Amino acid sequence: MDLEDTLLMMPGPVPVAPRVLRAMSKPMINHRGAEFSAMYDDCCEILADVFQTKNDIFLLSGSGTAAMEAAVACTTEKDDVVLSLENGKFGERFKDIAARYGKVNALENEWGHSFDLNEVEKKLEEGAKTITLIHNETSVGIQNPAKDIGKLAKKHDALFIMDGVTTIGGDLVKTDEWGVDIAVVGSQKCLAAPPGLSMISVSDRAFEAMADKENLPYYLDLKAYKKSADKSQTPYTPAIPLFFALQEALHIVKEESMDARIKRHATGAKAIRAAASAMCIEMFPQLNAEHSHYSNTVTAMKAPEGITGNDIKKDMMARGITIAGGQSHLSGKIFRIGSMGNVQPKDIMLTIQELELVLKKREIISDIGPGVEAASEVLDTLL
Amino acid sequence: MDLEDTLLMMPGPVPVAPRVLRAMSKPMINHRGAEFSAMYDDCCEILADVFQTKNDIFLLSGSGTAAMEAAVACTTEKDDVVLSLENGKFGERFKDIAARYGKVNALENEWGHSFDLNEVEKKLEEGAKTITLIHNETSVGIQNPAKDIGKLAKKHDALFIMDGVTTIGGDLVKTDEWGVDIAVVGSQKCLAAPPGLSMISVSDRAFEAMADKENLPYYLDLKAYKKSADKSQTPYTPAIPLFFALQEALHIVKEESMDARIKRHATGAKAIRAAASAMCIEMFPQLNAEHSHYSNTVTAMKAPEGITGNDIKKDMMARGITIAGGQSHLSGKIFRIGSMGNVQPKDIMLTIQELELVLKKREIISDIGPGVEAASEVLDTLL
Repeated sequence: MDLEDTLLMMPGPVPVAPRVLRAMSKPMINHRGAEFSAMYDDCCEILADVFQTKNDIFLLSGSGTAAMEAAVACTTEKDDVVLSLENGKFGERFKDIAARYGKVNALENEWGHSFDLNEVEKKLEEGAKTITLIHNETSVGIQNPAKDIGKLAKKHDALFIMDGVTTIGGDLVKTDEWGVDIAVVGSQKCLAAPPGLSMISVSDRAFEAMADKENLPYYLDLKAYKKSADKSQTPYTPAIPLFFALQEALHIVKEESMDARIKRHATGAKAIRAAASAMCIEMFPQLNAEHSHYSNTVTAMKAPEGITGNDIKKDMMARGITIAGGQSHLSGKIFRIGSMGNVQPKDIMLTIQELELVLKKREIISDIGPGVEAASEVLDTLL
Repeated sequence: MDLEDTLLMMPGPVPVAPRVLRAMSKPMINHRGAEFSAMYDDCCEILADVFQTKNDIFLLSGSGTAAMEAAVACTTEKDDVVLSLENGKFGERFKDIAARYGKVNALENEWGHSFDLNEVEKKLEEGAKTITLIHNETSVGIQNPAKDIGKLAKKHDALFIMDGVTTIGGDLVKTDEWGVDIAVVGSQKCLAAPPGLSMISVSDRAFEAMADKENLPYYLDLKAYKKSADKSQTPYTPAIPLFFALQEALHIVKEESMDARIKRHATGAKAIRAAASAMCIEMFPQLNAEHSHYSNTVTAMKAPEGITGNDIKKDMMARGITIAGGQSHLSGKIFRIGSMGNVQPKDIMLTIQELELVLKKREIISDIGPGVEAASEVLDTLL
């Protein structure tokens, strides 16, 4: 198998468009020169629309985890309580990060189970300076109710930090309208750039929270980023090729328009769910609350009786398609198909077709066709 | 002027070879797959030779500053004393980083002035858990005596953290022989890869220092890197294209051999100094100690009477060559020519020739030729 010709249907890294790869391979430039600053400003302008925010946006040379840490580390003193909402691996990560900087009060749901807003509010009533939420819990394919959590945060005067790593740029996110003080996205997810950069929006209120804070981290010091942003620069040497790539990827986003992009993502995930249903594959998330939804960017399914998630992944890989298994204790029990970035209907159609063949050969399903037909019916609404 | 056809003669980012740019523009891969791990191992193997170490080496998706912070943050408790040696901007940065994590005892030399080993030892006698040194102080073009400092660190049982950002891969560095517990390098300097990655070697003794430490940083948690390294992975999503690029850049290093590379760097800087001398341009560093040397990778010169460093930089830029000015309070007073990475004699010859023309036109020197001749005489020893 030619590795370079593998179709990535993971929840990131996602396939990167040839024009983005070409942009990335330009010769180096001086990161303190005018041309870098122009690129920086161009990225920020498009990102403001993607984030739906008037807040400052900074570009960090580090993964989404770096930006998650920057958000918590810069706003949390050691006696501050961080209410951490967990229903998957990345919620757990946010909790672990918070524990290194403050006092954690965690709402720990079983992974894949939606949050009960009453429970969230009860926790907030115990007092919290900050609340952290994973908008789209990639590890379990659930979309958490960011808008509702934002309302509760506002009511209880808590800072709202949202990990939008696998929604921003592909799913509906309204940073300002939802009252998100700090929102975070990674380059290699819905924005379809290579991994290595993260973008973070920071409200005035969040800056106030870090005004008197002692011992900010250094590389992730958001105040340093703000100071350098006035000159359209980064405080430390940026990963220049990744900026070239991000800029081109953002132009693709702009050309498509966020409205069309959001519709395409939602339709793609819906098609995968329809196909799964036609193949009698169960969704993994337990949506026991009306305000939670299946993810619009990654679909997590239970491995059908008689096959593990890892076997499905392996069989798909042999056919040239990379999907994801389960993480931590979900390894083997679930499998996940990412449909984020510039993924097109044809990519989803191929994935479903191959999945049907894999399951048929393993004698998990008896007929091929129903999955493909169901997916097509949904995707054809985009035509 | 075509920006893509500018010759970068800065102390990083440096020009990146076309084959490195091509390697970087490959399609994305799964960072949890076998192909990534093979690339990771290949990089570490070559880096062990570059660092001259048997210690663990980790690859961070972040700039050299991130690795500097990781070194200090993971080994320093808030009551620990860090002896920070400063004679330039990056020494100052190390001091600022240390101040966020422990108690700083700084030896603050005037920028560009070499360290007096007796003074260093006196400071060590006051008690220090850790000593930080910039091996090559890029901001002022001085090479600090890492080997001697290593001996003093050993004698006084202090952890030795060395920033080798602009030496490792181009200048002589013997991490283990010199007793360097943590050594740091950036991708965009002597290794001639694009910016965005940093590599860090960590001794067992350094790991012992972080064994019981509470509240390690998260993204820069070296214990997490060690754990993932056992699987030839990184703990968080790596900047995949920069790994493709680094691997290819390291193959170039290996093909040239470190011995030849060190000789080429030393000869290149010597040629620039010879040219400067022939043009009556003074070196900036004050080498008032026998164990300090002019840098082998960047040459810092005083702006001659009648012109500022920034004007020289501007005039050179108009002729298609990017050099560097002075940083902070040295802005305008000095100018710097980088000669690191894959810089060839012809690049240095062109730079000197253009510099002579710039200075002649500004009526700073009366004749062109002596600089070129002096540089050529040194560089021709490489033929």
